[in-house]
Amino acid sequence: MNKIITISRQYGSGGREIGQKLAKHYDIPFYDNEIITRAAKESGFAEETFARAEDKATNSLLYSLAMGINVYGNQDFGFSGLSLDDRIFLAQSDVIRKVAEEGPCIIVGRCADYVLKEREDVVNLFIKAAMSFRIERAVSEYDIEENKAADVILKNDKRRGNYYNYHVGEKWTDLNNYDLVVRSDLSGIDNAVKCICTYLGE
Amino acid sequence: MNKIITISRQYGSGGREIGQKLAKHYDIPFYDNEIITRAAKESGFAEETFARAEDKATNSLLYSLAMGINVYGNQDFGFSGLSLDDRIFLAQSDVIRKVAEEGPCIIVGRCADYVLKEREDVVNLFIKAAMSFRIERAVSEYDIEENKAADVILKNDKRRGNYYNYHVGEKWTDLNNYDLVVRSDLSGIDNAVKCICTYLGE
Repeated sequence: MNKIITISRQYGSGGREIGQKLAKHYDIPFYDNEIITRAAKESGFAEETFARAEDKATNSLLYSLAMGINVYGNQDFGFSGLSLDDRIFLAQSDVIRKVAEEGPCIIVGRCADYVLKEREDVVNLFIKAAMSFRIERAVSEYDIEENKAADVILKNDKRRGNYYNYHVGEKWTDLNNYDLVVRSDLSGIDNAVKCICTYLGE
Repeated sequence: MNKIITISRQYGSGGREIGQKLAKHYDIPFYDNEIITRAAKESGFAEETFARAEDKATNSLLYSLAMGINVYGNQDFGFSGLSLDDRIFLAQSDVIRKVAEEGPCIIVGRCADYVLKEREDVVNLFIKAAMSFRIERAVSEYDIEENKAADVILKNDKRRGNYYNYHVGEKWTDLNNYDLVVRSDLSGIDNAVKCICTYLGE
């Protein structure tokens, strides 16, 4: 398997677990939000990174501004004309491009499908699941109180949808953005992993 | 495999061929547009069918009318208040419900996912593919001239999207409507079939 796999996922759908299992199966690195954000913070806040990154981002940012879909409340537009959130996104994008350059890997979240769209060796997955399944996982995996779980799930999905829409300028749930969309509760997590491996030619 | 499988598909993506191969693999009936339309014409044009069907459809039709997304130019609203196109859709829906009642099968097109949404034994697939792959198939499978293929593909997809939007009141390419979305050119047709079988627990 010589691909870079990006995973977008509904909150509680098991997308992250599926990513970890794929990484283990193929023995390739796994990057999630946390890892990418940490790497971006460690390496990406140098001035020259943002100077370089600004040009690349102009199109999507202009589009977002034109569409009036800016989702952030507290923007601190500085000298560069980019908010802190935009600069974090661009630093994360640099990390994503760098790890993709290093070889096959799994990248969860952070609009990695969009960041890597010029590469031909990328497979973009979206993992979804029924609400009942996601509530169960929110309770068992993330220790969320059962009566609050549905609310947490909807808020997180809304945030992810807005984040994608803001940075990519497209709808998060448009199937045109993905190569394979899997509803994980119907198959089960392990079978979803098998299904993805089959898709990848195994 | 004890499921009813519906397939929505981009023009030229191989969705119909995938459906036929699944039907053969599981030894279950295969229904496409043509078969369903023929059955609806033979059985569905009796007055009582439409009288019954009209009630069921009120919600989606009202929604469509309210949204102003009526896609048909020449509507012949008769005594029933339903256009001929609406009545054909309702007769086709009756056929779809009837064949689903008979047991596991493959149904391609005709918003079967929506028609059968109350059933719990249905898996909804969407097959998509890159334009270059679809042009190749349009030429080889449907004898379309190569320089006209892209145009034919886009027009057909537009028609299918409008049809879905009109009858279901939702976006055809919203992944929320499907359980599994497969991009067939990346995997190849036969591997897409294998991927679906794996998903279904094989």
